[in-house]
Amino acid sequence: MKTIIILAHPNIDQSVVNKSWIEALAQKNPEAKIHNIYKNYPDWKIDVAKEQALLEKYDRIILQFPIYWYNMPPLLKKWLDDVFAYGWAYGSTGNKLAGKEFGLAVSTGGAESAYTPDQYGTINELLKPLESTAKFVSAKYIPYHVFHGALSPDVQDRLAVNTEEYVNKVTQPC
Amino acid sequence: MKTIIILAHPNIDQSVVNKSWIEALAQKNPEAKIHNIYKNYPDWKIDVAKEQALLEKYDRIILQFPIYWYNMPPLLKKWLDDVFAYGWAYGSTGNKLAGKEFGLAVSTGGAESAYTPDQYGTINELLKPLESTAKFVSAKYIPYHVFHGALSPDVQDRLAVNTEEYVNKVTQPC
Repeated sequence: MKTIIILAHPNIDQSVVNKSWIEALAQKNPEAKIHNIYKNYPDWKIDVAKEQALLEKYDRIILQFPIYWYNMPPLLKKWLDDVFAYGWAYGSTGNKLAGKEFGLAVSTGGAESAYTPDQYGTINELLKPLESTAKFVSAKYIPYHVFHGALSPDVQDRLAVNTEEYVNKVTQPC
Repeated sequence: MKTIIILAHPNIDQSVVNKSWIEALAQKNPEAKIHNIYKNYPDWKIDVAKEQALLEKYDRIILQFPIYWYNMPPLLKKWLDDVFAYGWAYGSTGNKLAGKEFGLAVSTGGAESAYTPDQYGTINELLKPLESTAKFVSAKYIPYHVFHGALSPDVQDRLAVNTEEYVNKVTQPC
């Protein structure tokens, strides 16, 4: 399973959860590619041909990001809008993502109890746009990985186990 | 009802639906403010204090945008992340959006038949992150306005009536 992580964190150096995840992944599965788009595109100008060529090499694409305002960071949306282009990702000749696995690894600042249908929506509900995007390009949407409560005082108590689960989930077959 | 439209279209000059809407609004209700963020922030650097001061003047905030990949355009997400700040929009002293009306006016390229729970999700499902954002800042989420099938050949047949509905919906009490 050749995996690429599209890492979209506006400030990875100050991150706790996302940084823990990629550091563990780099150590335990160095063959997984970590592609940090905020670092690569500080000017927000995406090199579309380069990104498309990169994605074509992998079987599994994981979008990894912190959830702010119940949605993905803006540069990740720009990356999707630019890279998932007509004739490449969709349209009569656009099949380059068809059959690939498409997954998510996300963190939330708020506690898990806020992410229910009666409160602010489940992760599946909130990330429905990404599920529909996967469907439109005929990719296979796989179960997500999540860490809730990144702003809680007990983060360190929970992070080691969660990070191990993350490494397994993003690199092993579903 | 003092209304501001936050217009987020990456290319309003080439737009059909969104351009029709704002041109009609400017003509029929010139007191409604149209704030074009892609025009105001070509460098993607949002003037947060200016945006906050602007929003404080209005009772109803309408986010207007074309839906791409089942979600909002990236600059609108950046605007939300930057402007809806701790201490202003939320937090113990952050109440500047509380009680305001928060609505959406959106267009889709695809036909209405694609926007069902079994297909790619309803508009309400896809825009759940914005509904949850309104809830978190104690704003009142009001019914959205939509035009489906902006890429269909019959756009002009449907657009005049839809534009009239748009003008009424964004300026009149719910």
